[in-house]
Amino acid sequence: MKAIENTSIAERFAEIRGVTMKLIEPLETEDFIIQSHEDVSPAKWHIAHTTWFFERMILKEFKSNYEEFNPAFDFLFNSYYNTIGPYQPRHQRGVLSRPTVDQVIEYRKYVDQQVYNLLDESASETKKEIEALLYMGLQHEQQHQELILMDIKYNFFVNPLLPTYAQTKKRTLSKTQESQFVEYDGGLVEIGHDGDGFAFDNESPRHKVWLEPFKLATKPVTNGEFLEFINSGGYEKPEYWLSDGWSIVKEHNWKAPLYWLKDTEEKWQIFTLAGIQDLELDEPVSHVSFYEADAFSRWKGKRLPTEAEWEYASQSVAIRGNTMDDGVYHPVASSEDLQSSSLSKMFGDVWEWTASAYSPYPGSKPLEGALGEYNAKFMCNQMILRGGSCATPVDHIRKTYRNFFPPEKRWQFSGFRLAEDQS
Amino acid sequence: MKAIENTSIAERFAEIRGVTMKLIEPLETEDFIIQSHEDVSPAKWHIAHTTWFFERMILKEFKSNYEEFNPAFDFLFNSYYNTIGPYQPRHQRGVLSRPTVDQVIEYRKYVDQQVYNLLDESASETKKEIEALLYMGLQHEQQHQELILMDIKYNFFVNPLLPTYAQTKKRTLSKTQESQFVEYDGGLVEIGHDGDGFAFDNESPRHKVWLEPFKLATKPVTNGEFLEFINSGGYEKPEYWLSDGWSIVKEHNWKAPLYWLKDTEEKWQIFTLAGIQDLELDEPVSHVSFYEADAFSRWKGKRLPTEAEWEYASQSVAIRGNTMDDGVYHPVASSEDLQSSSLSKMFGDVWEWTASAYSPYPGSKPLEGALGEYNAKFMCNQMILRGGSCATPVDHIRKTYRNFFPPEKRWQFSGFRLAEDQS
Amino acid sequence: MKAIENTSIAERFAEIRGVTMKLIEPLETEDFIIQSHEDVSPAKWHIAHTTWFFERMILKEFKSNYEEFNPAFDFLFNSYYNTIGPYQPRHQRGVLSRPTVDQVIEYRKYVDQQVYNLLDESASETKKEIEALLYMGLQHEQQHQELILMDIKYNFFVNPLLPTYAQTKKRTLSKTQESQFVEYDGGLVEIGHDGDGFAFDNESPRHKVWLEPFKLATKPVTNGEFLEFINSGGYEKPEYWLSDGWSIVKEHNWKAPLYWLKDTEEKWQIFTLAGIQDLELDEPVSHVSFYEADAFSRWKGKRLPTEAEWEYASQSVAIRGNTMDDGVYHPVASSEDLQSSSLSKMFGDVWEWTASAYSPYPGSKPLEGALGEYNAKFMCNQMILRGGSCATPVDHIRKTYRNFFPPEKRWQFSGFRLAEDQS
Amino acid sequence: MKAIENTSIAERFAEIRGVTMKLIEPLETEDFIIQSHEDVSPAKWHIAHTTWFFERMILKEFKSNYEEFNPAFDFLFNSYYNTIGPYQPRHQRGVLSRPTVDQVIEYRKYVDQQVYNLLDESASETKKEIEALLYMGLQHEQQHQELILMDIKYNFFVNPLLPTYAQTKKRTLSKTQESQFVEYDGGLVEIGHDGDGFAFDNESPRHKVWLEPFKLATKPVTNGEFLEFINSGGYEKPEYWLSDGWSIVKEHNWKAPLYWLKDTEEKWQIFTLAGIQDLELDEPVSHVSFYEADAFSRWKGKRLPTEAEWEYASQSVAIRGNTMDDGVYHPVASSEDLQSSSLSKMFGDVWEWTASAYSPYPGSKPLEGALGEYNAKFMCNQMILRGGSCATPVDHIRKTYRNFFPPEKRWQFSGFRLAEDQS
Repeated sequence: MKAIENTSIAERFAEIRGVTMKLIEPLETEDFIIQSHEDVSPAKWHIAHTTWFFERMILKEFKSNYEEFNPAFDFLFNSYYNTIGPYQPRHQRGVLSRPTVDQVIEYRKYVDQQVYNLLDESASETKKEIEALLYMGLQHEQQHQELILMDIKYNFFVNPLLPTYAQTKKRTLSKTQESQFVEYDGGLVEIGHDGDGFAFDNESPRHKVWLEPFKLATKPVTNGEFLEFINSGGYEKPEYWLSDGWSIVKEHNWKAPLYWLKDTEEKWQIFTLAGIQDLELDEPVSHVSFYEADAFSRWKGKRLPTEAEWEYASQSVAIRGNTMDDGVYHPVASSEDLQSSSLSKMFGDVWEWTASAYSPYPGSKPLEGALGEYNAKFMCNQMILRGGSCATPVDHIRKTYRNFFPPEKRWQFSGFRLAEDQS
Repeated sequence: MKAIENTSIAERFAEIRGVTMKLIEPLETEDFIIQSHEDVSPAKWHIAHTTWFFERMILKEFKSNYEEFNPAFDFLFNSYYNTIGPYQPRHQRGVLSRPTVDQVIEYRKYVDQQVYNLLDESASETKKEIEALLYMGLQHEQQHQELILMDIKYNFFVNPLLPTYAQTKKRTLSKTQESQFVEYDGGLVEIGHDGDGFAFDNESPRHKVWLEPFKLATKPVTNGEFLEFINSGGYEKPEYWLSDGWSIVKEHNWKAPLYWLKDTEEKWQIFTLAGIQDLELDEPVSHVSFYEADAFSRWKGKRLPTEAEWEYASQSVAIRGNTMDDGVYHPVASSEDLQSSSLSKMFGDVWEWTASAYSPYPGSKPLEGALGEYNAKFMCNQMILRGGSCATPVDHIRKTYRNFFPPEKRWQFSGFRLAEDQS
Repeated sequence: MKAIENTSIAERFAEIRGVTMKLIEPLETEDFIIQSHEDVSPAKWHIAHTTWFFERMILKEFKSNYEEFNPAFDFLFNSYYNTIGPYQPRHQRGVLSRPTVDQVIEYRKYVDQQVYNLLDESASETKKEIEALLYMGLQHEQQHQELILMDIKYNFFVNPLLPTYAQTKKRTLSKTQESQFVEYDGGLVEIGHDGDGFAFDNESPRHKVWLEPFKLATKPVTNGEFLEFINSGGYEKPEYWLSDGWSIVKEHNWKAPLYWLKDTEEKWQIFTLAGIQDLELDEPVSHVSFYEADAFSRWKGKRLPTEAEWEYASQSVAIRGNTMDDGVYHPVASSEDLQSSSLSKMFGDVWEWTASAYSPYPGSKPLEGALGEYNAKFMCNQMILRGGSCATPVDHIRKTYRNFFPPEKRWQFSGFRLAEDQS
Repeated sequence: MKAIENTSIAERFAEIRGVTMKLIEPLETEDFIIQSHEDVSPAKWHIAHTTWFFERMILKEFKSNYEEFNPAFDFLFNSYYNTIGPYQPRHQRGVLSRPTVDQVIEYRKYVDQQVYNLLDESASETKKEIEALLYMGLQHEQQHQELILMDIKYNFFVNPLLPTYAQTKKRTLSKTQESQFVEYDGGLVEIGHDGDGFAFDNESPRHKVWLEPFKLATKPVTNGEFLEFINSGGYEKPEYWLSDGWSIVKEHNWKAPLYWLKDTEEKWQIFTLAGIQDLELDEPVSHVSFYEADAFSRWKGKRLPTEAEWEYASQSVAIRGNTMDDGVYHPVASSEDLQSSSLSKMFGDVWEWTASAYSPYPGSKPLEGALGEYNAKFMCNQMILRGGSCATPVDHIRKTYRNFFPPEKRWQFSGFRLAEDQS
């Protein structure tokens, strides 16, 4: 990770905005437009919305006489900020051919230039506030970088031609040994952000949690292990499943994780951003819902860790791993996994489902104004995931980072790691 | 209209295929991709599907060793021919970014060239059969030319930016006088295609129909007349409506024809392919459903004509009017309407809803094989429209032509003309 | 049929109202309440609604100082008369436990008594008008008698216990011979009601129709014949089906007519109002949709008759057959079928689907006021059936009677008879 | 509360089963059948299902040669135990008229007698196990007693006649003073069932939780306070609402709690089991969803308590209050509320929403076999409610009791009490 402190915010802005432009390079104009599922936004929308975020939250607030690029964009590219005003319904983002991709890129350039101008102009007292908001906007941009990869993958998967996003770096296909369990005493521990450096409002305050003694697996569950669950009839036996999960399995006729396909000879394959590939058994399983993670755990006689257990265990582990920066965009079986007596792959590869519902920390305070809608209003019907994935920028990952998704979603790079009680 | 007989089929093919390419010229790449409603296909799909029609129905049947451009296109661009095989679901045509627009245009060029080659090669005995199928394929192409205009209009309308397709030719805004009624004695008359020249299978055979004496309006109902219906509370009074129509009015909260909008000062405007314009009262009302046409008629104490009445009355009228070839793409109030004691605007401007459900003519025979699915399988829950519209190529219009749509649809250029019994 | 002319309207009223009460005798209180499908109304609703019809259309119009039994019933038991006012939504008829069945029967008695009082009181000039409306109300009552049987059958069928409505009279299981075709010359014929005796507004006026020469089958298609269609893969081959029909077949996974079940040894059985029974091959097939009738016809190389053909052919046949009055409530294979060179079973047994969409006759006039909603507003998306069924009172059947159902419905006793062109 | 220990299980069984029969006394046969919403089961189903629970979980397991009353009841009256077998879909419980109410009561009597026989016969070693299961079955029965009241209330509310269940005891309409806040130091506390007496598996084990200092309101929020929220535009301002909650508010057009109605003079009224009554401002607000409770709290600048806070605070409060046993079936403003410096109404009146999602306690173990499905499989997308309501039997209430409902449900007697942090 860069020494962010020594980088000017303008350089940082240029760098992260540039990463987004790099990510869309392999796309055809047509690829920017489609929305194959309500959850999946067009790439055009992502690059416009992240731009709108800077325009609406910073330029319109701080730049005197700021002239909007196009007043209609407030409606078109607001995502969900009800306090700002009405917006294009989420499931209708893919019916808009205009503005064109070129016009949206022009919009990016315009806003980028205005941000630089603002930084040049602004007096020192407001500069600090602006920089904090810019930093927030960049975190937001990074979240959408991961979403761009997730959404392109899904959009391409529904196309019978199964297009390839990019010939990504080759996966290292190391043989790994079986997962072990590391023991933790628990007790009265602390989790949450302590105020040092950037964090979202939902990560604070740092607070005490009582943990019973527990064990945590050294690595995430692999495709091979998950295949055993499938082959033992896991998707047909209601006793492993939460009630809501079982309904979803029946409704969607789930038989395997998302992106698993059988070829004509009934051999499992897996769709990746580099196209269709053979299923690699030693890789972490990915694109499973919370329900599948939970059902596997029950089948195995284990459970998922709580987010407090996960975060507490992570406190002694360095943040590194297979992240977006590596350009693989797929979880891998790495040689690191051989030293399996300590925790590996806590960061990168796959977001790890926890047993914890997304709820506010004791004493937490959402941000004021529209930005208060950023995180807090989703604190219901969502489960916490931790650790970042192969599609997360490494400098976006924090040990205290609380990602969240509804339990049935699986288009994100989501896997899981087992835990259990110490009896 | 051209003297088609003297034009070689190859020239005719080049000409009509060229018209399609001309129609898509004003579009941006992004405009080709979107599908804002299940009924509305992406422009890319239209230009690929019409091409596939020639490939699948002619080249694969008649050209020896024909090599498909891409075998996956059989799935992607088959519209609804179940006897040919499975196909991309209709409501999912807009989730496919690939093949790209350029690749589809390449596909068109490839198939066009192969058609020319086939015409050069084929022996005289099969040539006739091929020419008949090509002629059918060109009629099909012309139907999709109208659909392209209809679908672009709808796609643009759902976009809050309300884009303009093209600065079309200026509308002639003549003052017209009120509609009168022409009397017909009826009796035992004949309608239907007599076998001379091309016609779809659903237009044959020519057959006898008994008609009671009736009257037919000299011109279609205008925006001004329809506005009176609206202003008298027509959309709020169930007594004018068929039961199914009333359900639709309530469900969709219809208050006016499709594409009518009120501006900020509550003045009616109308969305056209040339953008938003003032509502012109003397123009034929367009984009109404059968239910609205029927309700208006009941409110007015009249009725819609049957298709037999319409066709019989049309037999003395020449086929000309405001059609696609004029490039206005919008129904107009023409000077012709001043001579209102005889039928005007029977062809072009707006398709006219009739009171007749779409059902087979006595003794009719659908085509053999897959082409039997072209028309006959829709003979249920659809109503007949007659006469062609401002988006129909003039040489595609026939007096016996039976267009059909479900009674609730209104994204086609559909209006109506009143009839009544002679008491 | 009774000599209706010589029966006083009061006697007739007592008789038909009594038949309804007879029909509900086998029901438990619980059976009166349920609505297992939107199309299927609770028996309690039927007996209340038919009563409301007399109260609302006659007593409230003609009886001075008439005091409603319960003003809330106008909302609860209006079926679909929008011009009268708002009403309990159709699909919500089964969520009302109150009024109780006893209260509704009390309501019937109250209204019956008031009707008798009205007849006693009314002056001769209004009496005629009242009698006409009463006659209409009794026709309405008879329609609901058939609906009661249809709806109970459906409600019982969705119950895994498959209850029996009544031990009905034994079916005569005669062996029949194959259907033959009777030839008709056609020409300019007349159909429709000529004004003599009661008919609904949709049956008038009598009018001329031109018919091409045609043939009509001597009897309806049987279970055995339909089984051949099933066994030949009829439900799996799209080429036989209308497009809308094929969608329905796929959506509901239809494999056979409604009420056909396979027992544990894969032998076909059929659910009747007398419970589960063996499938009898010589019986007319029943509970098929228009789509199934149409698909069978196409498979067989025949077609359905138009309503004009059917009515014209029926003109030489006497109205008798297996009707509600026989108490079998199931179509039977009768000995009459042996004389198969003439038309049999035109009346009773099964309503016969025709190829004709339900539309107004030339010159037809719906009734004034609320009763105009009775028939005319359904003239869209419905197909005509003719002849009455085993659940229709015999004196309710007319040769000109136009029954209608949407093409996908099949909970009515509906079968069909083949027709074909004379080449 | 009775000294349960000294009551024989047979007496207890007779008593609780008798309460159910008492609850259904005011019902007409028709009332037993209807299901006006998927969440709401017919009373007949409740009395059959609770009986089936004893038959299936105890008699079929322990009684030798036990003969089922009706083998089909396993399908009809299994609620959701997938490991036992398939069952009548929940939303289809209201389409079954048979078995009749009388047959179901016969079923109850049969099973009751068999239970007594089993108790007489069983050897001492199995007797203990049987008694434990019987006790569980009685807890289950009591849950359904509350459901019967909830479901009847809802079923009657959708009926425009708004029937009355029973003239319940008069509500005491005491004037109360404003709520105050009680301070708690928190720290490392213990919650959960300690193994003494019956508890559901989800209440165990007793375990440590760290609590920050907090305050808890002395009484639940009242109708009057909630009315202020409404009048201040609470239902129109997205800033108070969770995202999912806001969607529900818009979708269902919520403007007030369930069962609030405005009379013709725009005065608020409230539907109760005793019929429509004036809204009493000092009563606890009831029939609100978690979303409404949460939005009110945010509007007020407070929050909901966690379940640990609630349980910890409740440890010093005696279990008494306005419960089912009082026969009021409606939350009341009681004189007790005057002493508002200590907690009141913690038990009875309304279930109180907490901020806690329903998840397993650390170290928890679901029951073995089918009974493991009783609670654990719902630990997702549900929120915890505490304290019991005016429809809960007093001896069913425990301080550790974890009730749970999806956050959007509000047909249960659910209110809430505010909490806040100590700054």
